[in-house]
Amino acid sequence: MNEFSSVDKSVFNKALLNPSAIALIGASSNLKKNTARPLLFMKKHGFNGEIYPVNPGADRILGEKVYPSVADLPEGIEHAFVMIDSAGVESVIEQCAARKIPVVTIYSDGFGEAGPQGMQKQQQLLEKAKQLGVRLLGPNSIGSANIQTGAIISVNAVFEMDNLLKGDISLVSQSGSMMGSLMSRAVARGFGFSKTVSVGNECDISTGEIVDALVDDDSTRVILLFLETLRDTATLTKALKRARQAGKPVITYKLGRSEQGDALSQSHTGAIAGNNAAIDAYFQANGVIRVNSLETLFEIAPLVSRYAHLRPAAYAETPVRVAVITTTGGGAATVVDNLGLAGIEAVAPTTEFIGQMAARGLNIRQTPVIDLTLAATSDQYRDLLNELVKTDWCDAVLSVVGSSAQFHPQLAIKPILETFESGNANNKPLVVFLSPDAPESLKLLQAANIGAFRTPEGCADALAAFFRPVIQDTEPAATEEFVLGEDYPQTGNFNEAEANRLFAHLGIPQAASQLVSTTDLAHQVPYPLVLKVVSRDILHKTDVGGVSINIQNDQHLQEAAQSMLAKVEKNAPAALIEGLYIQQMEGRLIELMLGYRHDPLVGPTVILSTGGITAELNPDFSIRTAPVSLTEARQMINEVQYTKLIRGYRNLPEGDCEGLAQAIVNFSKLALIRKQPVAEAEINPLFIQKDKVIAVDGVIRLKD
Amino acid sequence: MNEFSSVDKSVFNKALLNPSAIALIGASSNLKKNTARPLLFMKKHGFNGEIYPVNPGADRILGEKVYPSVADLPEGIEHAFVMIDSAGVESVIEQCAARKIPVVTIYSDGFGEAGPQGMQKQQQLLEKAKQLGVRLLGPNSIGSANIQTGAIISVNAVFEMDNLLKGDISLVSQSGSMMGSLMSRAVARGFGFSKTVSVGNECDISTGEIVDALVDDDSTRVILLFLETLRDTATLTKALKRARQAGKPVITYKLGRSEQGDALSQSHTGAIAGNNAAIDAYFQANGVIRVNSLETLFEIAPLVSRYAHLRPAAYAETPVRVAVITTTGGGAATVVDNLGLAGIEAVAPTTEFIGQMAARGLNIRQTPVIDLTLAATSDQYRDLLNELVKTDWCDAVLSVVGSSAQFHPQLAIKPILETFESGNANNKPLVVFLSPDAPESLKLLQAANIGAFRTPEGCADALAAFFRPVIQDTEPAATEEFVLGEDYPQTGNFNEAEANRLFAHLGIPQAASQLVSTTDLAHQVPYPLVLKVVSRDILHKTDVGGVSINIQNDQHLQEAAQSMLAKVEKNAPAALIEGLYIQQMEGRLIELMLGYRHDPLVGPTVILSTGGITAELNPDFSIRTAPVSLTEARQMINEVQYTKLIRGYRNLPEGDCEGLAQAIVNFSKLALIRKQPVAEAEINPLFIQKDKVIAVDGVIRLKD
Repeated sequence: MNEFSSVDKSVFNKALLNPSAIALIGASSNLKKNTARPLLFMKKHGFNGEIYPVNPGADRILGEKVYPSVADLPEGIEHAFVMIDSAGVESVIEQCAARKIPVVTIYSDGFGEAGPQGMQKQQQLLEKAKQLGVRLLGPNSIGSANIQTGAIISVNAVFEMDNLLKGDISLVSQSGSMMGSLMSRAVARGFGFSKTVSVGNECDISTGEIVDALVDDDSTRVILLFLETLRDTATLTKALKRARQAGKPVITYKLGRSEQGDALSQSHTGAIAGNNAAIDAYFQANGVIRVNSLETLFEIAPLVSRYAHLRPAAYAETPVRVAVITTTGGGAATVVDNLGLAGIEAVAPTTEFIGQMAARGLNIRQTPVIDLTLAATSDQYRDLLNELVKTDWCDAVLSVVGSSAQFHPQLAIKPILETFESGNANNKPLVVFLSPDAPESLKLLQAANIGAFRTPEGCADALAAFFRPVIQDTEPAATEEFVLGEDYPQTGNFNEAEANRLFAHLGIPQAASQLVSTTDLAHQVPYPLVLKVVSRDILHKTDVGGVSINIQNDQHLQEAAQSMLAKVEKNAPAALIEGLYIQQMEGRLIELMLGYRHDPLVGPTVILSTGGITAELNPDFSIRTAPVSLTEARQMINEVQYTKLIRGYRNLPEGDCEGLAQAIVNFSKLALIRKQPVAEAEINPLFIQKDKVIAVDGVIRLKD
Repeated sequence: MNEFSSVDKSVFNKALLNPSAIALIGASSNLKKNTARPLLFMKKHGFNGEIYPVNPGADRILGEKVYPSVADLPEGIEHAFVMIDSAGVESVIEQCAARKIPVVTIYSDGFGEAGPQGMQKQQQLLEKAKQLGVRLLGPNSIGSANIQTGAIISVNAVFEMDNLLKGDISLVSQSGSMMGSLMSRAVARGFGFSKTVSVGNECDISTGEIVDALVDDDSTRVILLFLETLRDTATLTKALKRARQAGKPVITYKLGRSEQGDALSQSHTGAIAGNNAAIDAYFQANGVIRVNSLETLFEIAPLVSRYAHLRPAAYAETPVRVAVITTTGGGAATVVDNLGLAGIEAVAPTTEFIGQMAARGLNIRQTPVIDLTLAATSDQYRDLLNELVKTDWCDAVLSVVGSSAQFHPQLAIKPILETFESGNANNKPLVVFLSPDAPESLKLLQAANIGAFRTPEGCADALAAFFRPVIQDTEPAATEEFVLGEDYPQTGNFNEAEANRLFAHLGIPQAASQLVSTTDLAHQVPYPLVLKVVSRDILHKTDVGGVSINIQNDQHLQEAAQSMLAKVEKNAPAALIEGLYIQQMEGRLIELMLGYRHDPLVGPTVILSTGGITAELNPDFSIRTAPVSLTEARQMINEVQYTKLIRGYRNLPEGDCEGLAQAIVNFSKLALIRKQPVAEAEINPLFIQKDKVIAVDGVIRLKD
């Protein structure tokens, strides 16, 4: 709960998700109007709490007594739904506070979503609510629903459905209309819901706080998030931690995979990775399962709720292996092809396993897809599934069912059901793809809470999402705050000498170097050298002639310095020159870029990437939220394809990957500077040698 | 038709796709057996031609007279379906020939799919059939069906369906079971079929020949291919050309997007692009629309059949622009996000258009998604659609429909239907995505042959596939055969001097160079130089010490030559040294790799790629079937991200892209060497300078 809340947590949770007394402010007596819907829906879906419609112009609606104003309402109302014109909302909030209503959902629009003026109105509303101790959901929220009790505090047309299935899935959506679309698709497939919440503009109650409430909700086992952006990430992070601790999986479908964040391209790190990659890193760091196909959002629920404890906590050395068993080779191949795109392997049974099955009377071949002929009996199929889930040569089992699923649902899924009933399927994820159109079979499987997929793409998406490791509390990264001493700038840009000093302090090896004045070039750095101009006003030294390489002796150095100062004077006349930087020239096997960026949504991130201009053309990078642990740093190295060149590729000499991993860890500690946070930083290039890594150029900029 | 065929084309087409008299050889009287199915299916689906079951042990099956043997059959049978054990198939073929049955489909398995022995049996069968003038479909074919007449010559369980919808889509499948899966999914969505054919092992009648027959089939408007591989590409290529000429779109879902072809990684070109990319290039060259999601294979049919004439023949300078109109912002965003991943842009209306609509009484905003409030009337929606399809600032219109599609199908799709009825929608692709679960609305749209999509992924997949340009006959590439003179090797590897001579002959600029003997280094090439060993036995010169660079003068050259010959003698003692190659050192803005490969499935291909070892780590390439036209060559350059460095990126100097395009065209003419075809070739590196390109190293290997 937000720190400013004056509402007790258990009162808040109940009022938000499970209210027994609900006011409908602005409920219409014209049953064709949207504002009449909540009452209609609650009647339709059997809500047996108290409903208080408020409307000055009606006496009774659908038999319910109508109150002329909020002031006329009795005490004890937990949740008010405001469906009036935006102009009147503020005074209604005051009236709700007077009636001690703890949670108010605002359907009214014309606030934050409607430009600067609306945003101002929203801010005013929020301040008023804070003063009065009322919590707000919305504005511009299509409402929430408790499917278990029938408390449908929503105008969403989806509740016109006759059969609202109850279940243990709860859905939080930043899009009101998608809440309905997702529910309709899920219900048609036999998925039941517990709570659904449209968060609207999230001016007060945020997605994170709702997740937190759902963690405490006994009838919610799986939490689905339809997200357009991230708001109030700090609260969400805390709630996600609680969800992990409670063993409640959180799954998201988030828009913006293709978005080109304008603001982001200003930083090199942002240009390479983009905002979406940072958000991905955030989800992974916080155990959120992100799916790429819309329907996978709910289709994956049985898989993750059954097997949450089997999700990997780290990347394996080898690809994830799935044993695929089928009577329809083509159908299996469509999934296997998509799995391959996600780096997951269809694995052939071992010779030992084949022998074991032969001894049980079933002959299978050593192929990546175990194609049982139609001749195999149902018992043999079940027997094979039972044995497969006990083996150690695969990480999951996929059963692909053919035409029998369409015409003989009971028969088709019998061996699968029996495998689950035996309890053996608890040891290893067992999921199903139905090759033909087979809605009945899908429903039967769903009724048994068995992961079953309608499309090969969805099935592969789910398995890939499930097997993406959860980067969380197994090996904590550094957490101790790092205070920037007074010998560092407290604002704006560092110059190179300062940046390198801080990087050295964090434990990142540097090229031997010395800061000298422009007039006295005396130094102890061994030749050959690189000479660079030092100025916090110059971000791109090369562009102004501020870098000179391969300097062999003192005379050469003198000449280079004079020439450089003349060029810089000409190209950047306004820049304050703080000195010259003399640096020993270093060799390398490869060079990389280490970037740091305080992402506006997810906070500190660290990126490892190829360097240079081509990094932006054909990105090859790995990104994490910072700080990172050593395990994560090692994984980041593996994710950058280019580092193969120092990892034993084609007999090339190997580089110091362990030193690189340590450098990433140390660099990521920039996130621990909390008083004057770093906005962005870069080591580019970072030279990787055989037995060490060397930072050659550094940039740091503090947040304004 | 294959050249060996003795069957007249129109007889063949009718017998294959539209037979009136069918023999079912091995039809069972036990109605539970698969082999009883064809008769059951034909009865069920009202086939009113003649059916001749053949079974020595039965008198009548389902009231039909049964024949004890093929020899007892009357003449005039057009198509026989063989469902007996593989051992008896050959003699049955002989009997069919005796009864003058032109086409025989073999359901029996145990042939090519069952290992070397089976393959031998299949070859034998094929030879026999050729001798006898009988055409074979299969073996291992689950059969074919004419949905229009009910001639279901198939054991596929999908025909148990009660409602087999008739329509203008025909499906050819290399997987028997997927034929059923796809049909069941399509029919459930209201898609009707004309012909469906499972090709089995394609020992005789290939996919290409069936496509050819479907081009001649008046009741087929759209041809769908479910492919596992390509066989008999030459026949397919001809058939695809006829399909384009007939205006019948061919759409494919092909497995193998993630396959790692083993044989391919042996060539550099193969390792970079992989077999799937070559197949993609083939599809694009031949106008085949390839989709990535299984269900898009049929979902896309109305879009491509309505608008085939609007498919782009070349890449546009700017992204494809889609105008998106919706009442459900979230639902529209799910499609737009996926479109963005495919490089397609949701485009905001122009100021002019907004004014135009305002004058008509509808206010819309200048946002990439045109979100009509729920307040817009059906007439306003239709009016907006009507105007949108007439504009020139977008390439397609997407209508995303919300909850009304679920609860009021007729009402929801009314404005869309009316837009089509007005005829305006013929000018520009107009498609629909339904955000909620709305099977009724989908069916209504399908009944009107309007492209409507169930998932955002499928919708984006279809639009992306539709707008991928058709590379075909607009600007023909070179076709004249090129004969390799006797001064070139007629087999095996070229040495570098020979390779460069051929490249120069094809019109690719070379670095100044001279072949000298190992004992006399006299030459006219200006310093500085590169010295290379010349030997067709040495593929990787650098690995054996056979390259020396930056040679400044004669003395240096002498030393380098001695040292090189000593190293090569030591590292490659068995290699025949043919001389030394002296080459002027050249500078470059960037270097690229040009590769050529005779792909085992699709034939000659040309690839433009970044060079060096990293090209394989992080592929950045463009591939086409060879030869290519200048337009295609230019497009290839645009597709390689790395070439941005010479195309005006960040004020970097521009390179000679036009010279590069010409070099690609000339290099691709290797495909015109038909007598002694080139297996693979490479120019690596190809230097790109400001005003020219220069080939620096060349390799050619002829096919064995």
